[in-house]
Amino acid sequence: MDLDFDKTGGLIPAVVQDHRTGRVLMVGFMNEEAFRRTVESGFATFYSRSRQKLWLKGESSGHRLVVKEISTDCDLDAVLVQVEALGPGVCHEGYESCFFRRLADGQWQIKDRQTYDPNAVYGGKA
Amino acid sequence: MDLDFDKTGGLIPAVVQDHRTGRVLMVGFMNEEAFRRTVESGFATFYSRSRQKLWLKGESSGHRLVVKEISTDCDLDAVLVQVEALGPGVCHEGYESCFFRRLADGQWQIKDRQTYDPNAVYGGKA
Repeated sequence: MDLDFDKTGGLIPAVVQDHRTGRVLMVGFMNEEAFRRTVESGFATFYSRSRQKLWLKGESSGHRLVVKEISTDCDLDAVLVQVEALGPGVCHEGYESCFFRRLADGQWQIKDRQTYDPNAVYGGKA
Repeated sequence: MDLDFDKTGGLIPAVVQDHRTGRVLMVGFMNEEAFRRTVESGFATFYSRSRQKLWLKGESSGHRLVVKEISTDCDLDAVLVQVEALGPGVCHEGYESCFFRRLADGQWQIKDRQTYDPNAVYGGKA
């Protein structure tokens, strides 16, 4: 019962959720190799579509995602990764979650406060 | 601040989460029209990649997803839709959540019990 990477050109969406609070922290994509490394290493690893290479989340920031449980869906073409997030936030813009904007009156409004200074962590480069 | 549908060929992943329990129920894809209909109607609407058309979730089962809040991520290329799920389950295989299998000892194992009989709802067709 293998994951279906072929359906979507080799990449499946991976939803990252805080294992304690249930908050959805980010959505990344995994190819087969990223999924294998995630399972084997215990740290969430994605395939960066913009950089076109494997991306161990937290490799530059230290904000790694420790895998607690991995689930898949009925069609085997998405995964849900429940994690313990190391560090103050998952988002490179300084927030706990990448989903820090909500739709209100037709506009995307920031709903969260930053939990860290991204410039201090990433040194100006995202 | 529009969503970035172009990055991924017109479709962005949409994570559906129960607004009360925080459980991730499914992942679908939306094109711009599906997103617009979701916002305007208040019911989650996706683009079915297999059927290549818009798909109002629950149009055959009645298990619609009432939108409570929509968030987007830092890159504006994914959405999180918090919903009230009408009916006993979101998954066409009879489960509350499509993520009913978890990885254990290298195998996908069913972790949930069915909450309804899919044959009674879908009449044998998924």
